[in-house]
Amino acid sequence: MSLTIAVVGPALAKPEELTAAEEVGRLLAAAGHTVITGGHGGVMEAASRGAAIADGTVIGILPGTQRDANPFVSIALPTGLGEMRNALIVRAADAVICVGGSWGTLSEVALAMRTGVPVVVLRGWELPEGPVLADSPQEAVMAAIRLGSQAHGQR
Amino acid sequence: MSLTIAVVGPALAKPEELTAAEEVGRLLAAAGHTVITGGHGGVMEAASRGAAIADGTVIGILPGTQRDANPFVSIALPTGLGEMRNALIVRAADAVICVGGSWGTLSEVALAMRTGVPVVVLRGWELPEGPVLADSPQEAVMAAIRLGSQAHGQR
Amino acid sequence: MSLTIAVVGPALAKPEELTAAEEVGRLLAAAGHTVITGGHGGVMEAASRGAAIADGTVIGILPGTQRDANPFVSIALPTGLGEMRNALIVRAADAVICVGGSWGTLSEVALAMRTGVPVVVLRGWELPEGPVLADSPQEAVMAAIRLGSQAHGQR
Amino acid sequence: MSLTIAVVGPALAKPEELTAAEEVGRLLAAAGHTVITGGHGGVMEAASRGAAIADGTVIGILPGTQRDANPFVSIALPTGLGEMRNALIVRAADAVICVGGSWGTLSEVALAMRTGVPVVVLRGWELPEGPVLADSPQEAVMAAIRLGSQAHGQR
Repeated sequence: MSLTIAVVGPALAKPEELTAAEEVGRLLAAAGHTVITGGHGGVMEAASRGAAIADGTVIGILPGTQRDANPFVSIALPTGLGEMRNALIVRAADAVICVGGSWGTLSEVALAMRTGVPVVVLRGWELPEGPVLADSPQEAVMAAIRLGSQAHGQR
Repeated sequence: MSLTIAVVGPALAKPEELTAAEEVGRLLAAAGHTVITGGHGGVMEAASRGAAIADGTVIGILPGTQRDANPFVSIALPTGLGEMRNALIVRAADAVICVGGSWGTLSEVALAMRTGVPVVVLRGWELPEGPVLADSPQEAVMAAIRLGSQAHGQR
Repeated sequence: MSLTIAVVGPALAKPEELTAAEEVGRLLAAAGHTVITGGHGGVMEAASRGAAIADGTVIGILPGTQRDANPFVSIALPTGLGEMRNALIVRAADAVICVGGSWGTLSEVALAMRTGVPVVVLRGWELPEGPVLADSPQEAVMAAIRLGSQAHGQR
Repeated sequence: MSLTIAVVGPALAKPEELTAAEEVGRLLAAAGHTVITGGHGGVMEAASRGAAIADGTVIGILPGTQRDANPFVSIALPTGLGEMRNALIVRAADAVICVGGSWGTLSEVALAMRTGVPVVVLRGWELPEGPVLADSPQEAVMAAIRLGSQAHGQR
């Protein structure tokens, strides 16, 4: 079963977050899953680059009406919704992997938790109980695939 | 200047949160401001009841396509957007007062912080730095009016 | 029963459309109903002015993130959705009165017909069969109230 | 340049509309372009099937929260927006090809015209002046690619 997994995280990210996000994207694509992100820089770009390296498909749900995605996005979808597009990323995903923290990232994690989309946190802000915590990209990807498969089946 | 202030918080709330939300709604309406909420129960209903007691206007931005607002909402707007309607509440508000915690509430606080809408937290989950913390309904309302007036002027 | 009736029409309207829209707004407000529009100029402003003259409530669902409604709107709600906000006007309405034609107006009429919201056309572009045609503001308002009451009851 | 072209039309379509839509999808994919549709049946499914036959990529922007796309969609994106998702299809497209008529289809054509997305009508309801009229799938696809390339360049 091919899943659609969102990778969410800040546009302004730390080096170790970028490294982790790229590895997450690579592992997801190598396992045959589609990566969906907000289409811009930082963690979004790193996850896209990782997936592109593994010849995966990357969907970028863009906030503006321009097609201004990072160069590793295979399908760029302008929405014109601004930050409201965060909710679309969550809706289209079977599971969400969060790498790093920012208010925009937190809005995606919170919406996913609210609407029953499984969330795996690799690195990021301290959160209330609920999301699954992972210690490595491998662990995050395995958890997201396992939880996303269950969620996918229930839809 | 009449402002539009969002009161956000859980549908399943604690008694002290309901008491605080009702007082927040009452104080906002007494000062001539419009209250906007998600239109359902718990903190949303308590804030609406408080505003209604003070003859204020309460806008309920509903998740479904039904007009199923709590009885204290003066203007019920069905959106059919589900939890994505949280973003609309934040967009329409000059400031946000958060009373109590839940994942849906957190999504509203995070979106507001991300998009530059001032947030005042009266009670709720522990949050990263950024929102203004208040110790009483009076303090929360005063802070929201002050910050909301500045934000309103800049629009 | 107080209904929420949308008045839709072009920002660049003909004098007779503006006259008709103002009368529609006035009659709706005089009968105790809330008027909802896109909040900008032309037919939207004329309907708002009519409702304001009769001391009615006018909701303006704005496309941008600014609070740039016409001066007769009592409650301005910025959405940041651009023309996608047209769908929200239709969702929040018990019935739609169309005065005059434009592509934006047509999108609202078509969405209303698609989603089962009654449409009354007073003046406007030629349309496929379906909407109720009215010859005067009085007739349009009476039809919208009658059809909107039925639709409201079914929600 | 690879474009994203929307094919819009009714779920309940006539045989000649289905034949035309399938040929449109096939020609778009054969020319290397991505097809985007509402993801469901009728014209949406026929265009998807045509694109799939030519090994193309088909994006389905779904109204519900379920992943209930027709079997020829390569990337299914649930939105939970209901008919409001029509606006997203238009936003993500460089051009729109309309095959057949319905109120939902008309809402997409009208939104595209309103927001400056080129529209080519192959078969469908009579419309106000504006969209380009085509007499065959070949002509429709050529016009959409030409107009979409210009629009794409301007973004």
